[in-house]
Amino acid sequence: MNSKALPRQVNNIEVGVYECEIHLKFRLIEEKSILGDRDQLLQVLLDALTEGSDEFLETLQSSVKAHEISELKTSPEMRRQLMRLRNCTDNCQ
Amino acid sequence: MNSKALPRQVNNIEVGVYECEIHLKFRLIEEKSILGDRDQLLQVLLDALTEGSDEFLETLQSSVKAHEISELKTSPEMRRQLMRLRNCTDNCQ
Repeated sequence: MNSKALPRQVNNIEVGVYECEIHLKFRLIEEKSILGDRDQLLQVLLDALTEGSDEFLETLQSSVKAHEISELKTSPEMRRQLMRLRNCTDNCQ
Repeated sequence: MNSKALPRQVNNIEVGVYECEIHLKFRLIEEKSILGDRDQLLQVLLDALTEGSDEFLETLQSSVKAHEISELKTSPEMRRQLMRLRNCTDNCQ
C-alpha cells in the first residue's frame, strides 16, 4: 500500500483531498447592475446561495458530490500544502 | 407588451428575476469529519468556494450562467416578494 495515498493526521485532525462537484439551478431576485458584472457573477451567486433559500432565491435543481481521492492525483501546489500541514504536525505540537 | 414581465425599479434600483446555473468541479483539502456530514456538505463547499482558489482548493471546471426571465415563470412566493419590493417603492420614498 502506498502511504502517500492515505489521508494524514494533522494536529490530530484527519484531512484528505476531495474531488467535489456542485451542480445547481435556481431562480434569484437580484439587482440588474450586480448581475451585469460577469467577472463577479460567480461570487455574487455564491454569496446568494450561502444565505440559503428564501423569498429571493428558489432552488430548481441541486446535485452535490464529494469523494476522497488519492493526493497523488492533485497538483504540486496542493501536495506542497499537504506537506506543510504534515510538517506542522511534526513540529508544532 | 405585458408590463408584468418587465423588470421593475425598486428605490431607483432596477431588479429582475434571473435563472441561474452553476456547475463546478474542484479539488479540496478538508477535514474528513467536516465533509462526512452530508447534510452540511453544500454549505461547507460553498464556504470553501467563497474564499476562492488557493493551495486548499483547485478548480477543475467552472460554468456559470445567469439570464433574466419573466417573473411570471416564478413561484407565488417570489412574485409576492417582488410585489413587496414594489409597494416599498411606492410608499417608502
